[in-house]
Amino acid sequence: MKTQQTAEGVARPAGRPRSEKADRSIIEATLELLGEGIGVSELSIESIAGRAGVGKTTIYRRWSNKEDLVVDALATLKPPIPLPQGGTVRDDLVTYLRVIQEESRHHRTRCIMNIAMSDSERHPRLAERFRELAVEPRRAVVAAVLRRGMETGELRADLDVDMALALLSGAMIWSTKWSHSGDHQADLPERIVDEALKGFRPRPSTPEP
Amino acid sequence: MKTQQTAEGVARPAGRPRSEKADRSIIEATLELLGEGIGVSELSIESIAGRAGVGKTTIYRRWSNKEDLVVDALATLKPPIPLPQGGTVRDDLVTYLRVIQEESRHHRTRCIMNIAMSDSERHPRLAERFRELAVEPRRAVVAAVLRRGMETGELRADLDVDMALALLSGAMIWSTKWSHSGDHQADLPERIVDEALKGFRPRPSTPEP
Repeated sequence: MKTQQTAEGVARPAGRPRSEKADRSIIEATLELLGEGIGVSELSIESIAGRAGVGKTTIYRRWSNKEDLVVDALATLKPPIPLPQGGTVRDDLVTYLRVIQEESRHHRTRCIMNIAMSDSERHPRLAERFRELAVEPRRAVVAAVLRRGMETGELRADLDVDMALALLSGAMIWSTKWSHSGDHQADLPERIVDEALKGFRPRPSTPEP
Repeated sequence: MKTQQTAEGVARPAGRPRSEKADRSIIEATLELLGEGIGVSELSIESIAGRAGVGKTTIYRRWSNKEDLVVDALATLKPPIPLPQGGTVRDDLVTYLRVIQEESRHHRTRCIMNIAMSDSERHPRLAERFRELAVEPRRAVVAAVLRRGMETGELRADLDVDMALALLSGAMIWSTKWSHSGDHQADLPERIVDEALKGFRPRPSTPEP
């Protein structure tokens, strides 16, 4: 494998970024500009390069287009959710919703996501890649929690995992966005999970509605 | 009560809009500009007046500020949801989610809501008034459906109405936004309602989890 020297003098595979530091500056500059209200359509590689203090070539060496760079920048705001092993399904689901709640409280993250997604109609590939890179891995983690519960009997064996995920995640996002005091309800994750689990747990028999 | 003649010659109370036609043009111009990607911060009364073919005074006579005009314009995209009387709770909930689904499929509505809400961090009063004017009336209608079900025994008497609303509405919005093929799943409203109702219906006894 061919290697090349980075600015820091560490040997790296050819084709990989020359400098992690430059990468971080470029990502941070992209987030800063989005956070200032500059939409994806208005955002230019030139303005990002200027803010990051690097040349445009340095950016193009790593990202072939603006959308890919924005997706990578957004993904840093939605890191994978590590779930402790061995807890109950309820504990894991509460942990998951608490991460979403914390993120929705973070002003800068909200602002940046709002700005970036406001343009998603014009940049459908951006939303699609963000889904693959940041949304799907989280879905997979929570889906695994639900499937574990279905195996142990904590949850119904016929649970619709996709729907369960949509109910939990959607309720959290909807509550923080539209409820009177959603942002300030510290126990919202528990309330949502407990209400949802009433339908997710096994039931001995179903009465006629 | 003082009245004045409108352009159409109909007597109206003083202080009310002089012309419904001008109002409609102003609302439509506001939606057009938002739909073109102009954020609330960039939007000016001057540009709206120019697009609508009216003077700025005509706008200020009706709306004292830009945010109020934007809220009224957005509210026209989210009219009240009329629910048929006498159906089952399931029917009414499916109807409600189907309206949300249709709206989320409507490209222009999505685009305009995205743009307007992308600035909501900078215009908190806008989001608050939109919630009061367009979100709360819908919540009230669906809450009434849920309470009716709790009275008739279709639903659990101890249902958490706020949480139930968040689960249903959130699941619909989350599914259309993030699922692989949410937009194309014609039966999504039924799937969400049926999965949610498993938890909302009365249960004879609860097994130990």
